[in-house]
Amino acid sequence: MVQRIAIVEQILNANDLLAQENRRRLDEQGVVAINMMASPGAGKTSLILRTIEALAGQLRLAVVEGDTAPVTIDADKISAQGVLAVQINTGGDCHLDAVMFQAALPQFDLKQLDLLIVENVGNLICPASFQLGTHCNVLIASVPEGDDKPYKYPNIYRGVDALIINKIDLLPYVPFDMDYFRRGVEALNPGLAVFPLSCRTGEGLEAWTAWLAAQARRQRA
Amino acid sequence: MVQRIAIVEQILNANDLLAQENRRRLDEQGVVAINMMASPGAGKTSLILRTIEALAGQLRLAVVEGDTAPVTIDADKISAQGVLAVQINTGGDCHLDAVMFQAALPQFDLKQLDLLIVENVGNLICPASFQLGTHCNVLIASVPEGDDKPYKYPNIYRGVDALIINKIDLLPYVPFDMDYFRRGVEALNPGLAVFPLSCRTGEGLEAWTAWLAAQARRQRA
Repeated sequence: MVQRIAIVEQILNANDLLAQENRRRLDEQGVVAINMMASPGAGKTSLILRTIEALAGQLRLAVVEGDTAPVTIDADKISAQGVLAVQINTGGDCHLDAVMFQAALPQFDLKQLDLLIVENVGNLICPASFQLGTHCNVLIASVPEGDDKPYKYPNIYRGVDALIINKIDLLPYVPFDMDYFRRGVEALNPGLAVFPLSCRTGEGLEAWTAWLAAQARRQRA
Repeated sequence: MVQRIAIVEQILNANDLLAQENRRRLDEQGVVAINMMASPGAGKTSLILRTIEALAGQLRLAVVEGDTAPVTIDADKISAQGVLAVQINTGGDCHLDAVMFQAALPQFDLKQLDLLIVENVGNLICPASFQLGTHCNVLIASVPEGDDKPYKYPNIYRGVDALIINKIDLLPYVPFDMDYFRRGVEALNPGLAVFPLSCRTGEGLEAWTAWLAAQARRQRA
């Protein structure tokens, strides 16, 4: 006789199961975690630095730095601001996954944290397929990348909870049709929270940090 | 008795074997093929369009367009210049491989071609691990991505035969230390051919197209 397992809902893969465990652990300690994804050079580290500046007085923050190489360029910048940064070196791999994130968690005293920011590896494709167990997925687009990216990399735009459009200070110097870009986003992810800003000039940062602080307050409530 | 296979050199994986076959097929027809890799938005398509403009009178060109989504935005731009573009839609996959390239080759009349340009999927990590069978791997960096990319994505910088630094017209508007960038490149890939240029203004394009035309001439000789 063959014994069958009744499949009542989609069976989760190993990564998703582990991601759920990670999420539970964060929830128990009242920490909100966000997963920041972007192309190389869109400004993930710059945005994290700006976010630390803005929120360090209100929230207790720490950072997980995902890198494909063992250089600590980004982690050093975070540490220089007095914030703990734990680096995950993927050894050439193109994304973080729930196993790597789980391995990083014991490095933090979660009881003493409100917000854990994860900087994923610079890649618009692979990170979209691996949940970490964070509460929000945030995508950083940037103006010089061009206005057609939602159309060309739809998967990552579909799965995020907030979208930053960074480097708006470069709008006068590059061709970028904001309406075309935002129509593409809206078709993939209707009603998505979108924050056009410039890490360089500081323009637009407040709306983003207010949104993020609200996520952390909600988690503690 | 156990029969052993003497391993005299590194056994190639299936992708590499297929890449060799692709290369043989191109060589037989005197076609030189180049594999263009870059982050999303570094300017692969813009550079291909500029290259077509510059070389269309001298060389018979065609393009393979790699995309993760079924949109034909890039392929349409190439076709509009009267050049055949064959799109490979990877169905969400993060890179082209030798199997996909092999499937595209019969779409071209190779006897009637000098230069086949392959636009890989926008990604700085995964494409570096999959040879296609092209003759040159070309990486396009871009100024707004930042000057630390060779340090953070060393694998792709190690394996290329030429490097474009695109969007030099944005140098006045973004922080980018060209010496720091080039030192990083030189450490990974000494003597690499480097072409700083701007697809927007046309500055620097001639050195690149002259290099490329020389590759094609060498293949026909």
